[in-house]
Amino acid sequence: MSITPWKILSSTHPGANVRIDQCELPGGKHIEGFVLEYRDWVTVLALTKHREVVMVRQYRHGARRVIEELPGGSMDATDASPEEAVRRELLEETGYDSQRFIEIGKASPNPANQTNLIHSFLALDARKVGPQHLDETEEIEVLLKPLEEVIRMAERGELLQSMQVATLFFALSYLNRIA
Amino acid sequence: MSITPWKILSSTHPGANVRIDQCELPGGKHIEGFVLEYRDWVTVLALTKHREVVMVRQYRHGARRVIEELPGGSMDATDASPEEAVRRELLEETGYDSQRFIEIGKASPNPANQTNLIHSFLALDARKVGPQHLDETEEIEVLLKPLEEVIRMAERGELLQSMQVATLFFALSYLNRIA
Repeated sequence: MSITPWKILSSTHPGANVRIDQCELPGGKHIEGFVLEYRDWVTVLALTKHREVVMVRQYRHGARRVIEELPGGSMDATDASPEEAVRRELLEETGYDSQRFIEIGKASPNPANQTNLIHSFLALDARKVGPQHLDETEEIEVLLKPLEEVIRMAERGELLQSMQVATLFFALSYLNRIA
Repeated sequence: MSITPWKILSSTHPGANVRIDQCELPGGKHIEGFVLEYRDWVTVLALTKHREVVMVRQYRHGARRVIEELPGGSMDATDASPEEAVRRELLEETGYDSQRFIEIGKASPNPANQTNLIHSFLALDARKVGPQHLDETEEIEVLLKPLEEVIRMAERGELLQSMQVATLFFALSYLNRIA
């Protein structure tokens, strides 16, 4: 499958999800605080019983690159919990499911300007249970990579998403790979 | 020092640094791409010769929390390189300097919506060379923590910045702590 960048037709500058707070500092000085309001995000390192990681390859418009990532996304209003959201995302993006999702870490993608957290999960004995269920705008390729290779990818800067390198830290820590 | 959250006086919704691209997908469908244009960011795990990490404690308005972090920030237009930027940030925020900054990783804070990268550095034999140089809006407390304690903090979710957990991954990998 050839995944290609979107072509930009035009650009405008509105302010969806963006808030500017007029703030007062403890000393009395006034300052503007730029805030992005997002729902919480979720991501998962899903391991098959052969210790392979379920990964997705897709185009990311901010970076303007096609990259390999861990599955994940934003919580929906209908998700009862981060675990439900991450299971839904894994299933939709890859067709894989697991009976065991463990929340291994929780962090802020950017505490200076964003309101949300990202919840990192480890899923064990993940297996393919059906086809992908993608939005009509999504184009996602699924691939399996040995955990060791994903660690090497991260070390080489090829696991581009910073939040997913953090997820790998949490997973290795959980799996007792970090002393 | 008591670091307290800023008081919000009012909020408006302009669109600084925000861009909406009208895009065409490979199949011909049109979609809006929400993009945040930022300069590259830098952050540093600075180790003293006693293997302590130079950390800062400050209020982060997006998360509305006072948190402990690694020093860092945004590159300035006048910074010739990420290394120059991170050295400047370390010096300004903490008064510490090092003769050896090593770029240990490079990642995207959010490839879906942001244009920028964050450059992670390790600084060795960091030592205090002068006072902090803070903006009048900055209120930053400096503290030293043993590296082992920073690892435990990250594992407990107390190193809130996801990008800094990734930096810790890169540092431990560089220092051969990850198998």
